[in-house]
Amino acid sequence: MVQGIETWVAPGVRGLAPYQPGKPISDLERELGIQDIVKLASNENPLGYSPHVRDALSSALPDMARYPDGGGYALKSALARYYGLTQDQVTLGNGSNDVLDIVARTFLTHEQGAIVAQYAFAIYALTVQAMSAPLQVVPAIHYGHDLTAMAQAVQVSTRLIFIANPNNPTGSSVSQQELKVFMQELPPHVHVVLDEAYLEYSDEGGVDAATWIEQFPRLIICRTFSKAYGLAGLRIGYALSSAPVANLLNRVRQPFNVSSLGLVAAEAALADQDFVMRTRQLNQAGLQQLRAPLEGKGLQVLPSQGNFLCLDMGRPAQPVYEALLRQGVIVRPLGGYGMPNHLRVSVGLPEENARFLTALDHVLS
Amino acid sequence: MVQGIETWVAPGVRGLAPYQPGKPISDLERELGIQDIVKLASNENPLGYSPHVRDALSSALPDMARYPDGGGYALKSALARYYGLTQDQVTLGNGSNDVLDIVARTFLTHEQGAIVAQYAFAIYALTVQAMSAPLQVVPAIHYGHDLTAMAQAVQVSTRLIFIANPNNPTGSSVSQQELKVFMQELPPHVHVVLDEAYLEYSDEGGVDAATWIEQFPRLIICRTFSKAYGLAGLRIGYALSSAPVANLLNRVRQPFNVSSLGLVAAEAALADQDFVMRTRQLNQAGLQQLRAPLEGKGLQVLPSQGNFLCLDMGRPAQPVYEALLRQGVIVRPLGGYGMPNHLRVSVGLPEENARFLTALDHVLS
Repeated sequence: MVQGIETWVAPGVRGLAPYQPGKPISDLERELGIQDIVKLASNENPLGYSPHVRDALSSALPDMARYPDGGGYALKSALARYYGLTQDQVTLGNGSNDVLDIVARTFLTHEQGAIVAQYAFAIYALTVQAMSAPLQVVPAIHYGHDLTAMAQAVQVSTRLIFIANPNNPTGSSVSQQELKVFMQELPPHVHVVLDEAYLEYSDEGGVDAATWIEQFPRLIICRTFSKAYGLAGLRIGYALSSAPVANLLNRVRQPFNVSSLGLVAAEAALADQDFVMRTRQLNQAGLQQLRAPLEGKGLQVLPSQGNFLCLDMGRPAQPVYEALLRQGVIVRPLGGYGMPNHLRVSVGLPEENARFLTALDHVLS
Repeated sequence: MVQGIETWVAPGVRGLAPYQPGKPISDLERELGIQDIVKLASNENPLGYSPHVRDALSSALPDMARYPDGGGYALKSALARYYGLTQDQVTLGNGSNDVLDIVARTFLTHEQGAIVAQYAFAIYALTVQAMSAPLQVVPAIHYGHDLTAMAQAVQVSTRLIFIANPNNPTGSSVSQQELKVFMQELPPHVHVVLDEAYLEYSDEGGVDAATWIEQFPRLIICRTFSKAYGLAGLRIGYALSSAPVANLLNRVRQPFNVSSLGLVAAEAALADQDFVMRTRQLNQAGLQQLRAPLEGKGLQVLPSQGNFLCLDMGRPAQPVYEALLRQGVIVRPLGGYGMPNHLRVSVGLPEENARFLTALDHVLS
C-alpha cells in the first residue's frame, strides 16, 4: 500500500478536485440502461461541424503514423491571415484548456499568482491551484465579472487575470469599452487572459485581435474550435498575443500538443464561416424557444451571451438534474460553482430544446 | 513593445529552449522545393497503423462536435483488461509526453526535484525545467543509464527519477533484473517514471505491469500508441500505476486531454496485436539491413533495442544531416543531446533504408 502519498506531491495537488465535465451520453446509457438521450450539458454545437471538415479529415487519415507538424505551420498561417496577425503571434493548444494551462505554467509559481472572478469558468482556478500558485477570487457582480474590483485586487505578486467573455456557466459579459478601461489601468507585471470561447454567440463578438494586441501587449486572447466550429472532440484551441508572449508560451507547450487531425480539421473549419453563421442563427432561435417557457414556469433565467442558459430553479437543483437524467435529458448542475440552485442548459436543436422543456415540466409537476 | 517580459515568468521558463522535433516532410518540401522525401527522423512506424483503426476512425468521425469521454471509460477498460489491472490504475495522456508532464506537475515544485540520465530522452529535462524544479543529470555509462549512480544521487528533495527503457535516442537498455535491484533500493519519497515507449521493439519487452506495480507501488510505467501501434499523429499515451498514484495524476490531467478519435483509435489498435508483431518483424529486418553497411563504412553504431540506430559519424554530424536533407532524406542530428558527432536514423521500409544508405554514401564520398 502507498501510505501518505499526498505528503510527497506538490502542495496545490493535495486538495485538488478534478473538473466535473458534463455527463457523457455513453455513461448515462450504461448507468440507467436508457436510450434516446438528449445531451444539453456541454455547450456543444448541435449542428455538428462543417462538411468541409469531414472531407479534410478523411483525406488526412492515412497519415496518422506520422507525428503532427509540431510547428502547426498551415493552421497558424491560416489563423494569422484570418486575424491580420503574424504566425509568431499564435500558440496552438489541445483545446483552449491546454492554452490556459500553458499560460498558467508560463507565468505562475508558488509566489506568483492569479486573479479570477467568482462564478468564472472553473478551469481557471483549477489550473492556478495545480501550479500551487496564489489564487484570488473576486466576488461577482450580477453573476458577472466585476472588472473594477478585479483591477483593485492586483498585488505586486499578481501575474495573471483571467476574464471569460462571455462567461461560462453564467452567460454574463462585459463590454469592450469596459474591458478597454480595465486594460489601461493594469501595471506591467500583469498579463490578462481574455477567454473568448463563446465570442461567436455574443452580440458584440470578440475583440479585434490585431488592434487590441497592438494596444495591449500584455493581452492574451484565447479562442477555441470546440464551440461554434463544432470540433470539441478533436481538441483545438489557440492563443493570440504579442510575439514575445507567444514565444514564451511555445516554450512551455508540449511539442506535439495538437493532433494531425485537429490541425487539418481546424484549418478547414476556419474557412467555412457560413457554417458559423448558421450556428449563430440556430442559437438565437433556440435561446428564444427556451427563454419564454422557462420564465413562464417562474424560473429566473440569467441574461446569456452564450449558447446556453443559466437557470435559478429557486430550490436545490441537483435533484432536478437527477430527475431529468431519468427522463433521458442531460443538463449541468452548478453546485461545484457555488450555485446549488442553478442549472445550465445548452441550446440544442429545436426538437432537443422541446424535449428538455417537456421533461422539465414533468419533473417540476 | 514588451520590455523585459522574461522578468515576469516562472524562473524555469526563462532559459527554456523548446524541444526540437524531427523535421516534418512538409517543411523540407517548402524550404528546398524537393519531392519524394524519406523521413527517418521521428521513430515512426513505417507500416502505418492497423486497418482496424481505420475502420474505427471512420465510424467515429460524425461525432466530433461532442466532447470526448473525459473518463476514457472504453479505452481504460481495454487497457486494464489487457494488463490485468483495474481501470483506476490507468491515466491517459495526449501522447506519453503529456503523461510525463502530468507526472512532473504532480510531484515537482521549486523545491522538489528529479533525476535524469545524461543522453536520456530530452523531454524529461525540459519538463522538469518548465516546473522550475531542481534537476540532477547523472552521467551515462556506455551511453546508457547508470542505475547505481542514479540511486546514489537521490536526495531528501528528490521526488522523481526518469528511466527510459529502451532509451531514445541512444537505443540503450537496462535489464529487468537491474531495474528490480534499483527499485528495491529507493526510499519512499521517490517515484520512478519508467518510460517504455519502445518496449515492443526490445528483446526483453516491457515489465509485467501488474506484478511490478504490486511489488513497487511507487512505479509509474509510461507507454504509448505512437511507436509500434503507429498512431503518433493522434496523440495517445498512458501511465500504469497504483490506484492512489493514478488518482493524483488524474487530478492534474486536463479533463479532455485525449481526443475522441484518439480514444477509439487506441482501443482498436490495442486489439490488433498481429499488427504489432508484423511491426516488430519489419524492424528486426531493418536493423539488420542497416547495421552491416553502416559498420562497413567505419561508423560506430550503438547497440539498439529500439526502432532506430544511433551512429557516431566520427566528425561533426550536423553538416552530414544537412547534406542528407538535400538528398531528400531526413534523419535526426543529436547536437541538442550533447552528441554533436551522432545521428539517429529510424528504421523505415526496406526501400527507405536503402535510400538512406545510398544517400549517405553519396554524402560521405
